[in-house]
Amino acid sequence: MSLGTFYGIGVGPGDPELLTVKAASMLGRCPHVVAPTAKAGVKSVALEIAARFIPENAQLHELVFPMTTDTAELSRSWAAAARQIAALLQTGGDVCFLTLGDALVYSTYIYLLRELKTVLPELKAVTVPGITSFSAVAALTDFPLGEGKEPITVVPTADDLGAVRRALAAGGTVVLMKIGSRLGAILELLEAAGVIEHAVFVQRAGQRTQRVERDLRKLRAASEEAGYLSVILVHPKGKTS
Amino acid sequence: MSLGTFYGIGVGPGDPELLTVKAASMLGRCPHVVAPTAKAGVKSVALEIAARFIPENAQLHELVFPMTTDTAELSRSWAAAARQIAALLQTGGDVCFLTLGDALVYSTYIYLLRELKTVLPELKAVTVPGITSFSAVAALTDFPLGEGKEPITVVPTADDLGAVRRALAAGGTVVLMKIGSRLGAILELLEAAGVIEHAVFVQRAGQRTQRVERDLRKLRAASEEAGYLSVILVHPKGKTS
Repeated sequence: MSLGTFYGIGVGPGDPELLTVKAASMLGRCPHVVAPTAKAGVKSVALEIAARFIPENAQLHELVFPMTTDTAELSRSWAAAARQIAALLQTGGDVCFLTLGDALVYSTYIYLLRELKTVLPELKAVTVPGITSFSAVAALTDFPLGEGKEPITVVPTADDLGAVRRALAAGGTVVLMKIGSRLGAILELLEAAGVIEHAVFVQRAGQRTQRVERDLRKLRAASEEAGYLSVILVHPKGKTS
Repeated sequence: MSLGTFYGIGVGPGDPELLTVKAASMLGRCPHVVAPTAKAGVKSVALEIAARFIPENAQLHELVFPMTTDTAELSRSWAAAARQIAALLQTGGDVCFLTLGDALVYSTYIYLLRELKTVLPELKAVTVPGITSFSAVAALTDFPLGEGKEPITVVPTADDLGAVRRALAAGGTVVLMKIGSRLGAILELLEAAGVIEHAVFVQRAGQRTQRVERDLRKLRAASEEAGYLSVILVHPKGKTS
């Protein structure tokens, strides 16, 4: 029995039409589709986005990857997922793994792919890139991401507001991802740095529950929930578009 | 006569299958397609990528945007293009403008959109994001772009090697774009910084003439031409994937 191929499919941030033609056609002929979910019984966001491209006879596998910073628990979940996927590949069938946004930008897919290469050294893997959340947010707000000789700095703001300050000091556009419960602190920082007027905020870009906000001061009273799947684009000197 | 809508379509870096489903479907029903080219008579790369999605009865318009740093000449070319596109929109037809990679990452589209908003204040514009060259390069080489708490810094290296050094010092993944004739100097810098072994090089990702190189020392004797439409991904501490 020959080994199936493992496809890592970036499904983009929310709008199903932002899947690539390649992703859509691969999903259309893949016997196994694996979708990550944060908790058993909670529907996978990536699966909701890609659903229309998955044929009825495909086998769906929802695997739980807990949202935790406990590295031992994370390692266990990656190892368990890798074993399950390896078993599917060993039946000879191809496996498509869905991943939000781009497959290699702050994704579980990175860790899963490493683990799979360990479990299955003869792995055949193909990664299909996806639209990043920040490209989608830029398009929704006509915010230039990169211009002229200026850098783009993408900062996962989870723990480190110092990194946000350093990125602003570098000039160019700053992309803030993984905002989560830090939204309040980030808004304070942007206000103190005098750049809050040069920023846009988008939550769940392209999903039905999308929120676009060009006046970030309106987010001041926002709950922790407002930071989930949110992106802020900011330019220290402001941008006209 | 109602005004047509202006669509800015990111066509990705080279593989036609990396257009989004949205881009492909918009091109399929757009009466006017505008493609940028660097010189009269030279075929537009963006048009070659998108060609299969453009119906035969669409009107093609190739507009020249010279590759120059002469700001007066650039301004004239944007203004001329904006006037031509405004005239098409005023006939009531929609216009799709093709742009390589993502529409808002170091693209002529950014300047053209600004100019169009000036020429035609009542402009209706929709931007469709595209796969960036760096996402495509990461997928081709399984190179993690962003991981954990680390930043991603995208540097257009055209003139400023200092920016490359600062980006490496920030930690995280560094994306070098717009390499052009600076390839030799960049390779020297990466060698001196001790990171040349932690880098990948891809030219014309997804195009027929694509080149993937994981040993950057092999590029040492490369001509200026090797830097055109090239991307280098590098991580100061190295990456396993």
